[in-house]
Amino acid sequence: MNIEVCHTPQAYSLFHKEEAIVVVIDIFRATSAIVTAFYNGVSKMIPVATVNEAKEYQNNGYLAAAERDGEVIEGFELGNSPFGYMNNKVKGKIIAISTTNGTQAIEASRKASKIVIGSFLNLDVLCEYLMVQKKDVILLCAGWKNKFNLEDTVFAGAVVEKLTSQGIYQIDCDSAIAAKHLYNLAKNNLFNFLADSSHRQRLAKLDLERDIKYCLTPNQCPVIPVMEGKYLVKL
Amino acid sequence: MNIEVCHTPQAYSLFHKEEAIVVVIDIFRATSAIVTAFYNGVSKMIPVATVNEAKEYQNNGYLAAAERDGEVIEGFELGNSPFGYMNNKVKGKIIAISTTNGTQAIEASRKASKIVIGSFLNLDVLCEYLMVQKKDVILLCAGWKNKFNLEDTVFAGAVVEKLTSQGIYQIDCDSAIAAKHLYNLAKNNLFNFLADSSHRQRLAKLDLERDIKYCLTPNQCPVIPVMEGKYLVKL
Repeated sequence: MNIEVCHTPQAYSLFHKEEAIVVVIDIFRATSAIVTAFYNGVSKMIPVATVNEAKEYQNNGYLAAAERDGEVIEGFELGNSPFGYMNNKVKGKIIAISTTNGTQAIEASRKASKIVIGSFLNLDVLCEYLMVQKKDVILLCAGWKNKFNLEDTVFAGAVVEKLTSQGIYQIDCDSAIAAKHLYNLAKNNLFNFLADSSHRQRLAKLDLERDIKYCLTPNQCPVIPVMEGKYLVKL
Repeated sequence: MNIEVCHTPQAYSLFHKEEAIVVVIDIFRATSAIVTAFYNGVSKMIPVATVNEAKEYQNNGYLAAAERDGEVIEGFELGNSPFGYMNNKVKGKIIAISTTNGTQAIEASRKASKIVIGSFLNLDVLCEYLMVQKKDVILLCAGWKNKFNLEDTVFAGAVVEKLTSQGIYQIDCDSAIAAKHLYNLAKNNLFNFLADSSHRQRLAKLDLERDIKYCLTPNQCPVIPVMEGKYLVKL
C-alpha cells in the first residue's frame, strides 16, 4: 500500500484514487477542534464550505461554528478553538461547522470513498486504524488558503513515519519523504520547531498560545471522526 | 524583501506578485540543461509548452528539443539532458525547447515581470544577482506533473539559505522554511539525500546517473538565463 501527502485542497484532484482513505489535516485548528468535539460527546458535525451554509443551519436550530482567519465570525457561538468544544453544552448535539481551511479540504475530497479526520490529538488511534485497513492513504493537508503549511505537513510526516515503520506502507511520493524528514526534525520539540511558522505567527497575534500547545500534544482524544454522507460521526 | 517557495506551476497564481522576480527551477533536468546550453554558447532558447510547437519551430529550421517523461521525443535531436548541449553544434544557435515540467513552469509564470532560470549549476551567480535586485523573489519549482518534488525544493532551500543569511531577505512563507530545513539536511550529500526521491528512481530506470551527478554539482555554469519576450537569453 502507498501513502501520499497532498499539501493543499487545490492539489487534491491530482491525488484522488477511488479506493484510498483520505485523512484531512488542519492542525491549527479545525481538525484538532473536531476531534476534541467528538471526544467531548458531540453527536454529529456537518462540515460546510461557506459561512452562509453554517448560518442556515443555525437558523434551523442547530449549534453552528464559523471561523475565518483565526477568529470566530460574529453571530456564532463557536469557532475552531478546541476549548470551545470542551463543555456540556455540546454533548449530544449536532454542530454545523465552516472554517478557513479545514472544511475546504473536506469539501475538496468529497469524492473519496472514505474521509477521516486527523490531528496530533488522535495520532495513535488513527495510525492503528489505518494500519489494519490495508488501503492506500492520502494525507490531505488543509494548508493556508491553498498554500503549503508547516504544521499540517509535520503531522502528515508523523503518520508517514508510523505507517512506514511497520513495513506495511511504502512511499513513492516526494511530499511524503519530505514530510517524514520534517517530522523527524520537529518531533522532539514541536512547539519550538513551529515557532517561526506563518500560522503560529498569525495565531500568536490572536493570543492563542494555549490552543497551539494543546493542538500539539499527542493522543489526548483517542477518537476517529469519519464522514458518513454529509455528517461527520465517531467511528 | 520576501522570498517565497511555490512547489508547483498549478499553485503559481496564488503567489504571483506584479514586481517579484520568478526563479524557475527544474533540477532534473530542464533548467540544468538550459543553464548548460547558455554556458556552452547557445544564443537564445524558446521555451514552448507543447511538443507540437517545438515541432513547428523545427519545421521552420530551428534546432528543437522535446522531452516527455525523461525521454527525448522521437524526431528530435535534443531532450533535456545537459550533455546534449555540450557541443559545438549548439553554439550560436536558437533552440526551441519543450519539457514535461520545466517549460510548463515558465508558461505558468509568463505574467511575471522578470523570469530567470535556476539550477545548482548557476547557484552562486544567481544568488548574487538576486541579492542586488532588492525585489521580492518567488522560487517556482517545476515539480513533477504539478506534484511537489524533492530536488527542486532542496534547491529552492539552498537559495533561501543564501539569501536570508545576509539579512536582506525575510521569510514569511512556510514552504520557504521547509525548503531551508530540507536543504540543510541534504547539503552535505545531495546525491544520497535524493537517492529515494521519486524522480531519481524514474531517472535511474533510464540510466541517467551521470546526468544526476552533473545536475547536483554546484556552480559549473556561471550564467543566468532570463526571459525576454518569448526568448530566453543570457543576462
